[in-house]
Amino acid sequence: MAATQSNDPGDHAKVPRTARGRETLRKLLDAAALEFGEKGFHEASISGITRRAGTALGSFYTYFESKDAIFRALVKDMSAQVARQVGEAVAPETAAFDIERAALHSFLDFAREHKEIYRIIDEAEFVDPTSFRQHYETTAVRILDRLHKGEADGEFRDGMEEAHAWALMGMNVFLGLRFSVWSESCDAERIAGLANDMLRSGIGRSGD
Amino acid sequence: MAATQSNDPGDHAKVPRTARGRETLRKLLDAAALEFGEKGFHEASISGITRRAGTALGSFYTYFESKDAIFRALVKDMSAQVARQVGEAVAPETAAFDIERAALHSFLDFAREHKEIYRIIDEAEFVDPTSFRQHYETTAVRILDRLHKGEADGEFRDGMEEAHAWALMGMNVFLGLRFSVWSESCDAERIAGLANDMLRSGIGRSGD
Repeated sequence: MAATQSNDPGDHAKVPRTARGRETLRKLLDAAALEFGEKGFHEASISGITRRAGTALGSFYTYFESKDAIFRALVKDMSAQVARQVGEAVAPETAAFDIERAALHSFLDFAREHKEIYRIIDEAEFVDPTSFRQHYETTAVRILDRLHKGEADGEFRDGMEEAHAWALMGMNVFLGLRFSVWSESCDAERIAGLANDMLRSGIGRSGD
Repeated sequence: MAATQSNDPGDHAKVPRTARGRETLRKLLDAAALEFGEKGFHEASISGITRRAGTALGSFYTYFESKDAIFRALVKDMSAQVARQVGEAVAPETAAFDIERAALHSFLDFAREHKEIYRIIDEAEFVDPTSFRQHYETTAVRILDRLHKGEADGEFRDGMEEAHAWALMGMNVFLGLRFSVWSESCDAERIAGLANDMLRSGIGRSGD
């Protein structure tokens, strides 16, 4: 799963064997994020990517065989970056609700730094539906694992299932769209806290 | 706002003055939903739309000046259809949480009947960003109105704000993607009930 392959663009790119190769691959993926994010898939070009990366065209073809291939690798890479960033934000032994708050806060920060992620993942729905679907399915599995762990710890109520994970993912994705990509006018910590309260005890007055 | 203009495709189409004209316009929009949903914006064609609608090419140009224009009108129309469908599912005097459950159930049903809605709204992010943004902003305003009403009725707790509306919208949109568009394996009523419990009292064990 992409979630566990942080730096590995998977079967879409040759895996570099040297530190320098890994650095070149990283530069190409970062450049691709900017190029696809700014121009969209159809207008983006391989030469635009290598220009931004400051690499030779030959280096591109060492790792990717086409614009499609680097786009697929990029979706997988961004999916893994989100997973890694969220994972790093959470100390071991953190209580389950605090994990969810930290995960959302960290995602909001990530989306502020990488606003292009929405456009890229969303465009995958059209350019590469398999990657699009895989991104959300993988993320939902990761969230459901956390929900089951919180259930086992006695912090979440019993019966957590896939639909809870999708509901939580949808909350986070839409809060990121509104409060990270479209506008940063609200404090990310405040948004994460508000969503965490909602997750913790809902919006009912008496909490019944 | 699109939410209040159910049958009016807005400033993107000429408004028909006769019942027959309204019927033709409806046929064109329904055909456009199928054509754009199946082929995507770029591959879709005006002749494909009129063929599906069983109307003459001239009728198309009576109402729309281009493929872009009918796409914009369609996004607005689908946004309004969702609003109308959800509105009709709710009897006056329904309690606030029951309104939310009925709204989600009705949306899940709508998305099962009109799976193309996701592809069309999502493609608007690239083809017509203004319509895309307007769809979600309008929907969030409508949800926030309901949240404020539930707050005034004493059913929701105080302090409902825009972020709550976006979180709820995200839950609903993602549940629709997973349980209406990708697979109908789960009962829509059950999913709506599960999400409603989550909204009502969160996922905390003690509800604190």
